[in-house]
Amino acid sequence: MRSWKFIVPAALILAATAAQSQQAPLSAAESDPVRMGWMQGTPTPPDKLVRFNDGNALAFPRNRWSFAHFREILPTARVSRGAGPVSPLPLALRPDIAKLTITWPGQTQPVNWVDAFDASYADAILVLHRGKIVFEKYNGVMNRDRPHIGFSMTKSLYGTLAETLIAEGKIDERRTVVSYLPELGTSGFADVTVRQLLDMTTSLDFNEDTDEGTKKFGAFMLGTGFYPRPAGYTGPATAFGALTTVRKVDDHGKRFDYQSVDTEVLGLIIAKVMGKRSHEVLSERIWSRIGAEHDADIVVDANGQPIAMGGLSATLRDFARFGEMMRLGGRYNGKQIVPAKIVAGIRAGGDRGLFAKALWDYNTRRGWSYRSQWWVRHNANGAYMAIGAYGQAIYVDPKAEMVMVRFMSGPVGSTVDMDPMTHAAVDALAARLQQAR
Amino acid sequence: MRSWKFIVPAALILAATAAQSQQAPLSAAESDPVRMGWMQGTPTPPDKLVRFNDGNALAFPRNRWSFAHFREILPTARVSRGAGPVSPLPLALRPDIAKLTITWPGQTQPVNWVDAFDASYADAILVLHRGKIVFEKYNGVMNRDRPHIGFSMTKSLYGTLAETLIAEGKIDERRTVVSYLPELGTSGFADVTVRQLLDMTTSLDFNEDTDEGTKKFGAFMLGTGFYPRPAGYTGPATAFGALTTVRKVDDHGKRFDYQSVDTEVLGLIIAKVMGKRSHEVLSERIWSRIGAEHDADIVVDANGQPIAMGGLSATLRDFARFGEMMRLGGRYNGKQIVPAKIVAGIRAGGDRGLFAKALWDYNTRRGWSYRSQWWVRHNANGAYMAIGAYGQAIYVDPKAEMVMVRFMSGPVGSTVDMDPMTHAAVDALAARLQQAR
Repeated sequence: MRSWKFIVPAALILAATAAQSQQAPLSAAESDPVRMGWMQGTPTPPDKLVRFNDGNALAFPRNRWSFAHFREILPTARVSRGAGPVSPLPLALRPDIAKLTITWPGQTQPVNWVDAFDASYADAILVLHRGKIVFEKYNGVMNRDRPHIGFSMTKSLYGTLAETLIAEGKIDERRTVVSYLPELGTSGFADVTVRQLLDMTTSLDFNEDTDEGTKKFGAFMLGTGFYPRPAGYTGPATAFGALTTVRKVDDHGKRFDYQSVDTEVLGLIIAKVMGKRSHEVLSERIWSRIGAEHDADIVVDANGQPIAMGGLSATLRDFARFGEMMRLGGRYNGKQIVPAKIVAGIRAGGDRGLFAKALWDYNTRRGWSYRSQWWVRHNANGAYMAIGAYGQAIYVDPKAEMVMVRFMSGPVGSTVDMDPMTHAAVDALAARLQQAR
Repeated sequence: MRSWKFIVPAALILAATAAQSQQAPLSAAESDPVRMGWMQGTPTPPDKLVRFNDGNALAFPRNRWSFAHFREILPTARVSRGAGPVSPLPLALRPDIAKLTITWPGQTQPVNWVDAFDASYADAILVLHRGKIVFEKYNGVMNRDRPHIGFSMTKSLYGTLAETLIAEGKIDERRTVVSYLPELGTSGFADVTVRQLLDMTTSLDFNEDTDEGTKKFGAFMLGTGFYPRPAGYTGPATAFGALTTVRKVDDHGKRFDYQSVDTEVLGLIIAKVMGKRSHEVLSERIWSRIGAEHDADIVVDANGQPIAMGGLSATLRDFARFGEMMRLGGRYNGKQIVPAKIVAGIRAGGDRGLFAKALWDYNTRRGWSYRSQWWVRHNANGAYMAIGAYGQAIYVDPKAEMVMVRFMSGPVGSTVDMDPMTHAAVDALAARLQQAR
């Protein structure tokens, strides 16, 4: 299956896994970062180092360490948790949840859902039911207090934040990018509306669903500094510089196209209207209000711009708190954190017709939509998801009163590849949690 | 006066301040980072950017912003505060403390001590008396929740940590570096003892008190990645690589020589004996036990090695908690955090004869000593200090039951230059606090 939404350019992955090209990649157990000995020893032996500048830090198998240590390889800004108390996440562990089985498409033998996740390089999994932890597990170098990169899950926080500012009248969803950011007036974003950014219905020469788009995405990531730059690199040195090079292809609004740069522009509009950098707004409006246990981290570029499309790292429980806040219609930790109507809007979903017209064939997401930086499943349970490369996920199931959060770090960046397993697991979880006990 | 212990190489400072060479540098008020508009605007105008790669981020006046945003310009590791409650620092503000005056040497007109500190580019000041805050002030971009780089104050935390491990028998102060780190066997550190590292009585071609030493220091900082590397840089790419290039000059143990590389090796020995990176040990033994409000940050090099000689950022109040723990003989926050005997040893000081033989003429520190990475004043009050470039300071005065913490970011890295003002202020503070009220 074609890889999709690589967070590491294909060339880097291929180089890092060249030795494995004749054989299957290391299994999850074989690639356990503790077993691999990454960053152990004083001084650390060269073959145990995870070094950003070597270009393999973000590639498998070193990503099993780096995804849990992002702030140690790139500059980051703090997304403050504020000074309030931690919101409780009571433990109500259920052995029956841990023992649930799923059956893979085309298979007949059921397997334990946790084993399936683990075999697919899960770093951590948490399931909340009615706000209580019914299942929680950490693998490798992860633990309750360690942040893990969320990649494009970051988008869903920014989308929720932008919707909040729209509800307050601080941002007008009908206005165009150029009206907020004249500096992008010659780019393809100029006549894009805020709503189009939110729902990713732009038409830009940055289609991540094509090989050419993957190249553009890689170039953009070099600009942000998220990827190590090759010697003699002369491309854009900042996220903003890279954004100015994006060109328009067709009229905007005609179809859904997953384009990470949309979120980056959204982050800039948030900063512009609020008069401060977007991570500070994210802290003030969301992160400092959900009772997070830990500050979150967000990667910043050379100009100090937080990378809204995928730079956020946080702990498993703190991402779960954010998901639980969404499940509860924005009311959590004793306060209305975001307006109920925007959560209802996200849950209701976006334009399924525009989604169906996407250039990429989302064969595992038929009938879905994308709304305000969330993936909406349009199933009977009203589920919606934040999804990040390599399998990061926050799954909110309102009917089952469930939130599932998963961190992963495997050899493949595509999240579509993991959909069958993910959907089998969340469906089994939801069904069990909906049963009377 | 000759600058000393630059944290930024002289060349960078000169380049950054060339425009000011014909005139006095901007005053503290003129260089206020909010007034300067650093990092404001979306997109931030080029002349308002603080960019590590431009080489001026650490130089005045941009250092007034960067010293409070170190994690945004360099990769850092988290020094976890753990999960325990915050230790209280009760407010007992005293107007008389705020109004104290000092008289500069050679002057007759007394000035307010806070005004004097502010005029010398103070970013924040805190005074504790018997564990209560009697004075607290934040300038510019600083606030109670923002970490500030401590530079060489980091050394005092590492020295205290190393002494703790010595007391536990995990490190032997008589053993040599090569016995812990064979990889440094061909360097000048090979036959240095742990005690010599702690008290900086090594003799290396790295004397920060000479022009040649300043160059070596700058080269070391390029190796750590703490300084931006010029195009075509071919020197060491890591702290460890830089350490292997340091050569011995004379027998060790003959005199005090302030050599930051000693602390870097000390950090490696801590990591080696504990089997984990040194910032994790710092968290486990100290930072997670003092009831810190915030995680601290420590700069890591390209190999993930925390920079023990000067990489720690923390909030004003958290540095004060560490100082208060020392003042109380290691017993703080309801527990004995470090053994009382090591605090007593630091307070008693090092070898004043070896200190007097230093190549640098410490004319503002006559009669002092250096013990376990602390500066010991040997005054009637038994005071000792953690000191970092540009004026960072933790001053512990046992007799006055006082701890003072100060952050600064001025045009000059030398802390010796600030000694007369600092000593006048702490002496006035101590005298007032010792008076019965």
